[in-house]
Amino acid sequence: MKIAILGATGLVGRTMLNLIEGRPWVTGDPVLLSSDRGAGTKLDFNGRSLECREVSANSFQDVDVALFSAGGRTSKTWAPVAAGAGAWVVDNSSAFRMTEGVPLVVPEINGQLVSWPEGNSGGIIANPNCSTIQIAMAVAPLDQAFGVTEAHVTTLQAVSGAGQAAVVELEHQEQGRPANNDGAFDRQIFRNAIPAIGDGLEDGSYEEETKVVRELRKILGRSADLAVSCTATRVPVVTGHSAAVRLVCDKPVDLKQAATVLSRFPGVEIDPDPHGFLTPLEVAGTTTVHVGRLRKDPDNPHALLMWVVADNLLKGAAWNAVQIAELLAGESPQ
Amino acid sequence: MKIAILGATGLVGRTMLNLIEGRPWVTGDPVLLSSDRGAGTKLDFNGRSLECREVSANSFQDVDVALFSAGGRTSKTWAPVAAGAGAWVVDNSSAFRMTEGVPLVVPEINGQLVSWPEGNSGGIIANPNCSTIQIAMAVAPLDQAFGVTEAHVTTLQAVSGAGQAAVVELEHQEQGRPANNDGAFDRQIFRNAIPAIGDGLEDGSYEEETKVVRELRKILGRSADLAVSCTATRVPVVTGHSAAVRLVCDKPVDLKQAATVLSRFPGVEIDPDPHGFLTPLEVAGTTTVHVGRLRKDPDNPHALLMWVVADNLLKGAAWNAVQIAELLAGESPQ
Repeated sequence: MKIAILGATGLVGRTMLNLIEGRPWVTGDPVLLSSDRGAGTKLDFNGRSLECREVSANSFQDVDVALFSAGGRTSKTWAPVAAGAGAWVVDNSSAFRMTEGVPLVVPEINGQLVSWPEGNSGGIIANPNCSTIQIAMAVAPLDQAFGVTEAHVTTLQAVSGAGQAAVVELEHQEQGRPANNDGAFDRQIFRNAIPAIGDGLEDGSYEEETKVVRELRKILGRSADLAVSCTATRVPVVTGHSAAVRLVCDKPVDLKQAATVLSRFPGVEIDPDPHGFLTPLEVAGTTTVHVGRLRKDPDNPHALLMWVVADNLLKGAAWNAVQIAELLAGESPQ
Repeated sequence: MKIAILGATGLVGRTMLNLIEGRPWVTGDPVLLSSDRGAGTKLDFNGRSLECREVSANSFQDVDVALFSAGGRTSKTWAPVAAGAGAWVVDNSSAFRMTEGVPLVVPEINGQLVSWPEGNSGGIIANPNCSTIQIAMAVAPLDQAFGVTEAHVTTLQAVSGAGQAAVVELEHQEQGRPANNDGAFDRQIFRNAIPAIGDGLEDGSYEEETKVVRELRKILGRSADLAVSCTATRVPVVTGHSAAVRLVCDKPVDLKQAATVLSRFPGVEIDPDPHGFLTPLEVAGTTTVHVGRLRKDPDNPHALLMWVVADNLLKGAAWNAVQIAELLAGESPQ
């Protein structure tokens, strides 16, 4: 398949490019695209230097799969163009995630939604929010086993989830420079914790929290029968999101069974010791979702607590998108 | 009142000493005590230099109130000695918090438990866990208004809660030195988050989590009818604990009323905007508990979410202890 990457110079775009190096289903050089100042940047691919070009109406000719990671506005403009040209867009922005008819895919959970229709007409597949992906990966097998009715989440999210500028801003603050409040954060993030990610919404939440609520339901194929609440916080971690999750289930929770279904779920690693866990620093660079601190709620036999960590740039973004592309490759008519 | 401070050279002990400077109820110089290598250290008090001495059986003669912050083992040894000598011990360790007959006091909530009995016989009053104090301050007025039946908490705790050595260890790691895993943390804390505070307990929790569960109930005068769960995490913040709290109540929650009862509660400041909040960095150095992100649970009209921050060394430790001493001063027979 001929691949394009829109937003190729960003943190997620570069990670996507690295991940598709050497994949047998990639035909020729990927088309590297930018919607802004990234045009002209050279990036390495299989030992060669490729130039990133400004996206245009002709960019998607002959492209089979276009990986988008350039923000919601860019996706809204260019995803219909790419799909109209016959490409499958795997969109990492939030632009189409809740759009009816657009599948919101975590391959291990609902990969069956990815199909290459007769005639290869192109279309859009949405890549979920970074935190939501790792939470969904841990909740899905428990939902199958015990019927999850409530999911209550507090996230501790890494700054790389806000892009390269946010990582640089943290590094500057670590080196003693004053916080640049016009930049990635409106308060100092070094030695701090900020419970606000994205814009404030009318219901009192911030965007990130509402993404977790809505996208978790859509990925699991659930509606209001799954109650979800979320407080999303930013912490001074470079890469690796953490989530403290409390689930309430239809059935009483058996911890041994919970550990077993988690351990059998592809892409999930579980530490069956309730005291065991990995930290975000330890999972950075891996593609798995790690579940630790798995234990019963002390007062509710139907509830459990767990600690879910994953690399937000890999399973939370680029790796999940590349997995979707791989599904398309497997199901493509060639 | 004649005051002694045991553990005077520690982070909390030094803060206690600063807080009692200039208080009208403090008689003469405080007796500064250490159970270990702190003996011999000189500390400033009202512009003069006082020497810290090794604690002994005679240390508490004529002492009215002894503020203890030298760890559970030291408290177990010396609190009965001090109380036997006629002093009131305000103990910041966990040694006596759950002991029947020992009041566990947050003055704004249950200060009426502090009374100076006839004959001034001395005794022990326990100062609660740092996270629990700030959570209890936010839950108490809501409990009165709506009848809280469940409290689910994720904490993001500052390293100063683990003492001076932990702060130094974070600073070393910030400067690029490798993590000293024999020290305050068993994994790197810089650019990381660690969901384990205290020793692991048999039920799968860590000590800090069980303290929140048990102490919150005792402070609020509740038993198993208040369900509590907690995941306690350490984050690379120097001072200022944060807690993401979800409460389920008997009555449906009215947000305006919730903000009103919180704003009227002494020692609590509330940002009534559901998007408003303070960060740990911003509350460090203040004695108030700040509640922000106050909003309804999206799926349960009986539930609310909030973000509670406070200085863990002040309201979470030294200030709460000094407030208890102040109650003793007001109720003392003089």
